[in-house]
Order: sequence, then structure tokens, then C-alpha cells
Amino acid sequence: MDGHITHQPLDRLKELLADELQAVDCLIRERMESENAPRIPEVTQYLIDAGGKKLRPILTLSSAQMFGYEGRYHLHLAATVEFIHSATLLHDDVVDESAQRRGKPTPNILWDNKSSVLVGDFLFARSFQLMTETNNLRVLSLLADASATIAEGEVLQLTASHNLDTTEDIYLKIIRGKTAALFSAAAEVGAVIAEAPESSLCALRDYGDALGIAFQIADDLLDYTDDNPSFGKNIGDDFRECKVTLPVIKAIENATQKEKSFWMRTIEQGEQTDGDLEVALDLMHKYDTIEITRDEALSWAFKAREALKPLHDDEIKFLLQDLANYIVHRLH
Amino acid sequence: MDGHITHQPLDRLKELLADELQAVDCLIRERMESENAPRIPEVTQYLIDAGGKKLRPILTLSSAQMFGYEGRYHLHLAATVEFIHSATLLHDDVVDESAQRRGKPTPNILWDNKSSVLVGDFLFARSFQLMTETNNLRVLSLLADASATIAEGEVLQLTASHNLDTTEDIYLKIIRGKTAALFSAAAEVGAVIAEAPESSLCALRDYGDALGIAFQIADDLLDYTDDNPSFGKNIGDDFRECKVTLPVIKAIENATQKEKSFWMRTIEQGEQTDGDLEVALDLMHKYDTIEITRDEALSWAFKAREALKPLHDDEIKFLLQDLANYIVHRLH
Repeated sequence: MDGHITHQPLDRLKELLADELQAVDCLIRERMESENAPRIPEVTQYLIDAGGKKLRPILTLSSAQMFGYEGRYHLHLAATVEFIHSATLLHDDVVDESAQRRGKPTPNILWDNKSSVLVGDFLFARSFQLMTETNNLRVLSLLADASATIAEGEVLQLTASHNLDTTEDIYLKIIRGKTAALFSAAAEVGAVIAEAPESSLCALRDYGDALGIAFQIADDLLDYTDDNPSFGKNIGDDFRECKVTLPVIKAIENATQKEKSFWMRTIEQGEQTDGDLEVALDLMHKYDTIEITRDEALSWAFKAREALKPLHDDEIKFLLQDLANYIVHRLH
Repeated sequence: MDGHITHQPLDRLKELLADELQAVDCLIRERMESENAPRIPEVTQYLIDAGGKKLRPILTLSSAQMFGYEGRYHLHLAATVEFIHSATLLHDDVVDESAQRRGKPTPNILWDNKSSVLVGDFLFARSFQLMTETNNLRVLSLLADASATIAEGEVLQLTASHNLDTTEDIYLKIIRGKTAALFSAAAEVGAVIAEAPESSLCALRDYGDALGIAFQIADDLLDYTDDNPSFGKNIGDDFRECKVTLPVIKAIENATQKEKSFWMRTIEQGEQTDGDLEVALDLMHKYDTIEITRDEALSWAFKAREALKPLHDDEIKFLLQDLANYIVHRLH
């Protein structure tokens, strides 16, 4: 892949956008208040303290800044995309029955599933209020479409788990819903509010889409390559949860009859015993699916960088391009 | 209470709005399609077949019609409020761990909690797309506020269950969130899209609010007075679920020390044995809380009728007024 890599484009973006990010934090804190239902700020605060890279608000603030936006609504939109993201995390943890995220207990464990479902709904509703305040119909329409794509992707993922017929095409739809739709909308709305030209909106939309896909493929790959129990992640979590991600799909495509039986037992029927993960990893190595999946992530990162090429040169543009490298960099 | 009662104002409204209601059904069916995730139309279709009175879309269509609206967006808004309602039902059943609704198994039982959470999210997102298509910022702002009130009410209800400190004031906030916020928004947005004058918007907003409160108080009261196992409702369901509704709040307000211990054991600690429901009912009768709660519902129904008085005379206006009577009529 081409180009140099700023090793910490994310840190540099955070530095450049420090004031805005702080203002977004204030807005988030303000909007998660609830005089009557203190459970709401409790759960939300925990979620926000638990960290996360703030990638989505950074995309929104970056694109607004690139096009010289001088108003205040980019803050609303940055808070909006973070709220949507937090809401999906809350619901995901319930659906996945997760107990840990980033090495900390998840809200569904600390409180209960009920709180996670309802506080998630509250965050969706708040995000909707925040974006409505911008009075920008185009932004609303983009975020409404993104919300529907996210929800559809989540349902699709649910029905695809345990399902060996999941194709690469369906996998792509799932990760577009899960990750790329919000990345793409986050990048585009910042430019919409800044009244950027049509061609630039298109560039940022494509950038966000490709960045999100690269990010999610990398994430799914790391599940088979990166053992990091201190972050609450263990190698093979997706395998144990019978999720059909790209490295598995690629291995199944090439499987012999005997190997197909293995995948049917472990993924479709979910009957796993000691040593099965090792067999799965061996099959992935046999068909080079780890390498092939890595190349796929790199090629989406490349597409993301290319998408921004037509935009005027700007430090933020270069950092966003480097961010695409950085995101898949963890794979090397 | 004043006035005559048309015995079936709802049937007459359905007759008057038959074409529109059919068009709303078409729109709903169209928007719950999902090429990729067939689980979505499965769950949604089931929910819609299971019936329900379609009160919310009827409110929207009625107010649009009263102000001579001739466009198509009232259909979008009617479908929007029905989608929001369906989404909250899906999430409620998960939170309440319900197994039956209107005498039929709930989707969380027929499929699973995961599907109910995610399909609910999908319906929220679809409702958001539908309302965005109207390009009416005022409508969007109203529905965004209603969504936040609904979600906050749900969280508040969760933290109020088992809680004897729940005041009438908190109870009112809960039922405003649970029921009245969407009734109120449903009635108002139909008139907003029809460009009704400001004073009429206010009248419809107040009508929906009072109607929703009357409706929910009646519902909570029926839980202690109406045994109807064929509809999947049994007397005392709320008591067994330790919900603190108005008849209980009124009984606790007056309780002796010994009676307080009874409520603490049964509602706060949730330790119930045979005969406890009968004791609870006796205490409610002792303090006339059934009668007092009924009067409260009737007085909100009266407020609802009064709210519409300033509007121009129209068959639909009279039917909406009768609807308020009809809703609490079940209490006699």
C-alpha cells in the first residue's frame, strides 16, 4: 500500500479538534441528564467513561472544519452520532449477552438488560432531538437512512449467526449496517452542515463507507489473530459465539466435505469442544484466509484514502487519509 | 359528567377514515419490508395482525381531516405513530418479560428477546425515515420530543417499580411518557401538517395529553377490577409485577403502620403469597381508592373533551370528544 503513515493520526486529530471535542462532551453530558430518571445519566456516564476512540464525532468535526463551518451545529451532529453509537452498544450487549467490553463489565451486567434496552432507546430519542435542532432536512434524512441501515444490519447479523449460507455479499451488508453506515453519515453530515459542494459530500460519504468496512473487517480478523485478555477480548470469541465473519466465510468457500462437517457442527449447531478453535485456525491458515481477509481490509483502507483525493489539500484531509492506514495498521 | 355518548365513536371514526386507514396499512406493509432480513416483516406482521385499536393513527388522520388537509403526508405521520407504538410494545414485552398480549403469545416468546430488541430498533428507525419524508421541521421536532418523553417515562417506570416512594406526581410523569406523549403528538402532527392555526394545535395537543392520561389510568384501574383471562389479562397482574399504579399509591398514602408493612413486603420486596391480592383489594376498597381512581380517569376524560371545545364544530370533533367518554366508559 502506498504513502507514509503518521503514526498517530487520531492523536493529532484530537489535538486539532480539542476545543470542539470538549464542547461535544459538555453537550453530551447536558443531554443525558434526566431529572426524573437518574438511571439514565448513570448508565450513559459509565458508557462514556468506558472510553472508546470517539471516531464518529471526530469524523463529523473533521469534515465540518475542512469546509470552514463556523456555526455550532457540528457539535450537535457530533453528539448525535456518538449517542447513536452508544445506543447501539447498549442494545448489542443485550443481544450478544456480552459481559465485558474493553475489559470492563458491560451495563447489562452492572445494571440489567432492561436498563440497557430502555436507556438505549432514550439515547436514540435524544440523538433525534439533537439532530432536529439543526433544522437541516438533508442532515435528518441522511441520519434517518443511516439509522435504518444500522437496524437492518443488526437484524441481518442476528439471522446470519449459526448460518453457513452467509455469503460475502451478506457479510458486507451486515458490516455496512453495523459500522460503515454510521461512519459514512458521520463524515457526510459535517460537510452538509458546512454547505460543502455536492462532489465533496460524495467523497466524504464514500470515505466513511470504506473506512467503516476496513475497520470492521480488521476487527473481525483481530478476533482470530490477537489475544488480548486484558481488554476483555480473547482469541476466537466470534467463533465461540458462532458468528460467520469473513475469515470463516473464506474458509468455508474452499472446504472439503469433511471440513464442511466440521463447520456445520461447530458454527451451525454450535457444538464445540476443546481443540475446535485450533482446528478452525488451522483451516484458515490452510486456505490463507487470514492473509486474504487482511488484503481485503487493506484494499478498503486504500479505497477510503482514494475517495478523499479530489478534496482540496488540507492537514485534516491528510490526517483522515492516514487514519485509514492507521485503522488497518493493527493488522501488521 | 356531561353530554351524550355515541356508543361506538371508534367504529364511526374508522368508517369515516376507512380509505385513509387502508392507505396507512399499505404504507406500513411497504415500509416493514426488508429484502435482506425477513425476520423484520415476520415480527412486524405478527404484531400488526395481533390487532390493537389503531388509536394513534386515527388521532393523526382525524386532526388532518378536521383541518381539510389534502396532501398525502398525514398517511406518513399515521404510519409513523403506529411504528413508534409497535416499537415500544416490542421493547416493553422484553422489559416486562411478558408472555402474552391481547391473549396471544408475544414476539419475544415466539421468536426471542434479541429479535424483539432489534426489530423494535428497526421500527424506530423506519418511523424516523417516514416522518423525515414530510419535510416538515415542526412535525419532526414534536415527534423527537415525544420520543424522548416516551423513553424517559419507560426508564422512570422501571426505577419506580417496587418503589413505595412513587408519588402521584411521578406516576403522572410515567403515564405521560408511556401513553399520553404519543397520543398528544399523534393528534397534534395531523393538524400541523394541515397548517391549522396555533390555538387549534394547542387544543389538540391538550386533548391528546388528557386522553392518554385518562386511557392509562383506566387501564391501570381495570387491572384491579376486570378479570378477563381470555384476553391474556388476569386481575392483579400489575400487583404481581410489583408495579406502583394509582390505586396502590392512593392506598399507600392512607396506610396504617401495619398496612405499610404489608405493601413493603408485597410490592417493595416482592414477597407475595396466596391471599395477598385479596388483602390488597380489601385495602383499596377500605380507602375507596378504586372509586377515587375512577373519578380521576373521568376528570381527565372531561379535560380532553373540554380541550376540543374551542375548535369549529365538525363530526370528527364530536367523535373525538365521545372517544374520551368511550375510553373511560369501560370503567362503569
